[in-house]
Amino acid sequence: MSGQTIITISRQFGSGGKEIAEKLAKELNIPFYDRELIELAAKESGINEDLFEDEEFCSSRGYYLLGAIGFTLGSSITSISEMSINDRLFAVQSETIEHIAEQGSCIIVGRCADYVLRNRTDTLSVFIHADIRTRKERAIHVYAMDERNIESGIRKIDKRRANYYEYYTDRKWGEAAYYDLVLDSGIFGIDGCVALIQAALQEKDSNLNK
Amino acid sequence: MSGQTIITISRQFGSGGKEIAEKLAKELNIPFYDRELIELAAKESGINEDLFEDEEFCSSRGYYLLGAIGFTLGSSITSISEMSINDRLFAVQSETIEHIAEQGSCIIVGRCADYVLRNRTDTLSVFIHADIRTRKERAIHVYAMDERNIESGIRKIDKRRANYYEYYTDRKWGEAAYYDLVLDSGIFGIDGCVALIQAALQEKDSNLNK
Repeated sequence: MSGQTIITISRQFGSGGKEIAEKLAKELNIPFYDRELIELAAKESGINEDLFEDEEFCSSRGYYLLGAIGFTLGSSITSISEMSINDRLFAVQSETIEHIAEQGSCIIVGRCADYVLRNRTDTLSVFIHADIRTRKERAIHVYAMDERNIESGIRKIDKRRANYYEYYTDRKWGEAAYYDLVLDSGIFGIDGCVALIQAALQEKDSNLNK
Repeated sequence: MSGQTIITISRQFGSGGKEIAEKLAKELNIPFYDRELIELAAKESGINEDLFEDEEFCSSRGYYLLGAIGFTLGSSITSISEMSINDRLFAVQSETIEHIAEQGSCIIVGRCADYVLRNRTDTLSVFIHADIRTRKERAIHVYAMDERNIESGIRKIDKRRANYYEYYTDRKWGEAAYYDLVLDSGIFGIDGCVALIQAALQEKDSNLNK
């Protein structure tokens, strides 16, 4: 790939989006950002203390669950102060994503990064999905999820991702027209997706240089 | 590509989906099917006479407009006999698509072919979209559309396609998870999309042979 490219990856749970991102980052020798972005955001902004003060919501995982509950069950059960924590964290994350994008080529998974960086032209926004059988296998073997009610568990996580995305953007999560490239990892496999994203970067370059 | 592959292409109006399909068919040396599928369906079924009897709805284009009006404005203004013509034509088209798929590798544009062939494993379902600027340019230069109100014209055609698809399937048109591959032709260009679909066919083969 010539020049700077920020690759954003959105993904259905269990589709291997994170593994694809990590492998691609290695292939391209560029940084990769995922959940740790929250910590990074907190550190950079210096507001980690008041955001992570309460032990119950102290870890990034704890915060994540708070957000998930709030968005899944609706804002009616989420107090204004909790929502404002989410909103502030989103703002800090978005600023961090913008800052990271300024630094050079990288891969960012989730966190509405495609939306946050929508006005840049040096991005490639990717969505990864897969059939439910592929995702169940991954959930069991990679994430060690309990096989009981696994399908509803997977769909709930997707619902949380969709709710989060749709709360903070004016877009619908998983709508084809919002992504430059969408791949079914059940069809192409993890390595196939890595290869196809690289091919897409080349075709984008060729098309720009026409 | 090894073995048989049926490539179905769905597309936003003005995204160049048809041109991509035609170029790809030439590259792969396989047949390409588009609007002429209706005529083929009529001929094969032997029901062309009663379906195309009325001069007003005689041509495939006339039928298309009838269908579009019916679906766009809602079934309330479409008589039962007209709806049954649409439904019968859809059934005939679907049978023809299934028949064509049995014959060997080919490319089918539109006509809910991805849905009709959803139970086959030798298919690659592709969705092509592009930004509105790219589509406007194409609509003006390729389809000679009037520049006045062109954006609303483009969106209306997409709405008709979505309505048609969603009337005959239990899916949402343009939802990423239903397509094996989604490409933005504004980002990759027509030739870039042709190359990426070929790369995707290779990756699908490699993944199957793992």
